[in-house]
Amino acid sequence: MADSMDPQATVTLADIERAAEILKGAVVNTPCDRSYTLSRDLGVDLWLKFENLQFTASYKERGALVRLSALSEDERSRGVIAMSAGNHAQGVSYHAGRLGIPATIVMPEGTPAVKAENTKRWGAHVILEGKTLEDAAIFARAYGAEHGLTFVHPYNDPLIISGQGTVALEMLNAAPDLEVLIVPVGGGGLIAGMATAAKAIKPDIEVIGVEAALYPSMYNKIKGTHLPTRGDTLAEGIAVAEPGPIPAALVSKYVDDIVLVSETDLERATFALLMIEKTVVEGAGSAGLAAVMADRQRWKGRKVGIVLTGGNIDPRLLASVLTREIAREGRLSRLTIDIPDRPGELSRVSGVLGQAGANIVEVYHQRVFTDLPARGTELNLVIETRDRSHLEAVLARLEASGYRVVVKTGQVGS
Amino acid sequence: MADSMDPQATVTLADIERAAEILKGAVVNTPCDRSYTLSRDLGVDLWLKFENLQFTASYKERGALVRLSALSEDERSRGVIAMSAGNHAQGVSYHAGRLGIPATIVMPEGTPAVKAENTKRWGAHVILEGKTLEDAAIFARAYGAEHGLTFVHPYNDPLIISGQGTVALEMLNAAPDLEVLIVPVGGGGLIAGMATAAKAIKPDIEVIGVEAALYPSMYNKIKGTHLPTRGDTLAEGIAVAEPGPIPAALVSKYVDDIVLVSETDLERATFALLMIEKTVVEGAGSAGLAAVMADRQRWKGRKVGIVLTGGNIDPRLLASVLTREIAREGRLSRLTIDIPDRPGELSRVSGVLGQAGANIVEVYHQRVFTDLPARGTELNLVIETRDRSHLEAVLARLEASGYRVVVKTGQVGS
Repeated sequence: MADSMDPQATVTLADIERAAEILKGAVVNTPCDRSYTLSRDLGVDLWLKFENLQFTASYKERGALVRLSALSEDERSRGVIAMSAGNHAQGVSYHAGRLGIPATIVMPEGTPAVKAENTKRWGAHVILEGKTLEDAAIFARAYGAEHGLTFVHPYNDPLIISGQGTVALEMLNAAPDLEVLIVPVGGGGLIAGMATAAKAIKPDIEVIGVEAALYPSMYNKIKGTHLPTRGDTLAEGIAVAEPGPIPAALVSKYVDDIVLVSETDLERATFALLMIEKTVVEGAGSAGLAAVMADRQRWKGRKVGIVLTGGNIDPRLLASVLTREIAREGRLSRLTIDIPDRPGELSRVSGVLGQAGANIVEVYHQRVFTDLPARGTELNLVIETRDRSHLEAVLARLEASGYRVVVKTGQVGS
Repeated sequence: MADSMDPQATVTLADIERAAEILKGAVVNTPCDRSYTLSRDLGVDLWLKFENLQFTASYKERGALVRLSALSEDERSRGVIAMSAGNHAQGVSYHAGRLGIPATIVMPEGTPAVKAENTKRWGAHVILEGKTLEDAAIFARAYGAEHGLTFVHPYNDPLIISGQGTVALEMLNAAPDLEVLIVPVGGGGLIAGMATAAKAIKPDIEVIGVEAALYPSMYNKIKGTHLPTRGDTLAEGIAVAEPGPIPAALVSKYVDDIVLVSETDLERATFALLMIEKTVVEGAGSAGLAAVMADRQRWKGRKVGIVLTGGNIDPRLLASVLTREIAREGRLSRLTIDIPDRPGELSRVSGVLGQAGANIVEVYHQRVFTDLPARGTELNLVIETRDRSHLEAVLARLEASGYRVVVKTGQVGS
């Protein structure tokens, strides 16, 4: 996204404290609680900041409100424009609506209607334009310039960064002896603000950024590497190809390290937050926990704060996270069984499975494309078992009944 | 479940206030917050009590701890026994573990290992015995009698009822002007305690019970009906065939009405809590919201408090709730398309779908069992679309290309 901001612009603790004054009473000081179960299971003293419980379900409101509050009377009456189909769109629209500032949000064509609806409900004017995010951003700049609207950048703006930095003030207020903060990194606005605040208050605190391994853009910038940024990640909220120069400068000054997490790490963290904390966190929002789960030795016994940055996850993605994790736990498995091609054989296999207490979820009986000799055939099944040891008992029964079975445990779900 | 309790036993507000003293600092005074979004969407001033955020993720801890605290020194050292594979098991085990009281939990054979593990982690001794819940309960009574263990009933006990009743004290403390309380009903312990407390504090408050339509056991008892109680319900936590006589007596005295909710209502409520409140609630715990969503006119404009009783839902059930709701929204659909049986036809259909922006999730090509003339064949697809209007556009394209299509929108997912 092109930018007209002064790249030398920066942010100080005083800016972030001023931002906190502006936000008082208008955004939620979300809970920052210790997770007893995750702390015990991971051997890390783990504190969670629930920004997914913010009104529009992400921290993005903070920066948006600080930015809107800085508009002149004239700018307020002309209105603002932003490009986002996600949390930034909702944050800007909601607070613009509250303050009576006209807001225009540009989303790429083909954005699901539900995202446009979530934004329109706060009174914003939504324009679907541009085939890609980049095209949409270019359009938004041009449209804003033409109509005299102030462009609200999602991260490359000192006011936005100051607003996001208030998350660190609240965390250190709730748990002053935190030793480490682990923060998801997309464009870099959140970590830039948080690191600025945290290092000013407590210079020996460690601040760690987390990116999806598929989008290591800040990692590349800080470490001088050239890893590719591409692919479909569960953490779509931090899938940013190029971080903002203003946040990047603050990151290189204040952030101790950037770590990368795999898609499996992200899925497991999202699953753990659902099942243990009973809270819905989007992929990007789970990145902090993913980093701890992926390398718990690194933070063993230390007091670590992570930010659950947002809770806006597509229900289909959430269903897929659940299904894949169940498959990994050995509760849902895809089996291929070679059987002789003769009447009654399918019923015999089903009988063995039923007696072993396995539940058949899907059957696909394949008789054309198989490696077996002409009289053989292949039966593909998805079965549900209570747990891994039950699965093993079921497989043993099938083999004792004379079947050759191939199992794919981790490959169910889409 | 057979019972040795005096059926004349009862509970008063003073008992519940004493219970609250016992629980102080040992169970969480969970948040009781207004839901702005659900209030606006439903036209009801809706307050949610998050008992799913209790440490073992349900209110059951309350009664369990009050019961355990009433044991004599001698009973404490001999220990307790309970029958449950669910929330009661965790509540009893956790607090028994905290207090150093030996606990034995009986679960029916075939209970998933994860449930036994969740209970063992608090130090309880778990016995898997009995083919059904009833058999397991009979065994638990006999085993307890033989070994001198005190049986902790999940609901038919004045101490348990007093503990559960503290939920109403906390809700009326957080929101004193609540006009209605809507409470899920299984064995009846929670609603009996809550109604006793609420009516004593505020006689004009309305207390409404909710049962799954598949298990209308308290409904039958209060209304004198004989509706069947059977089937698989999402609200397994309140699927009780016979409520306790002690709670039932309090319910007939204090509760204003019992309403029934369908499985679809329960699924929609569970989905709304996930997607709007970002909170994981089990089927039984969603029953209160399900009742409001199913009949919002009844409580229009009133200040209604509902209890999200628990958050322990199987991930596979949760995935299925998500998938079915997405299908209902028109985002996932099963199509049957009649196509001529000739080369290239599948590719042609896929091409039309691709151009229309639909994503093909599953394909099943059926050429044997079809009603079509011998040269026709049937293509079964599951496709993903952005929303209902996108689905309609996709169907129009298919029909304009000459295909006859049958859609099953609500029938995807298991």
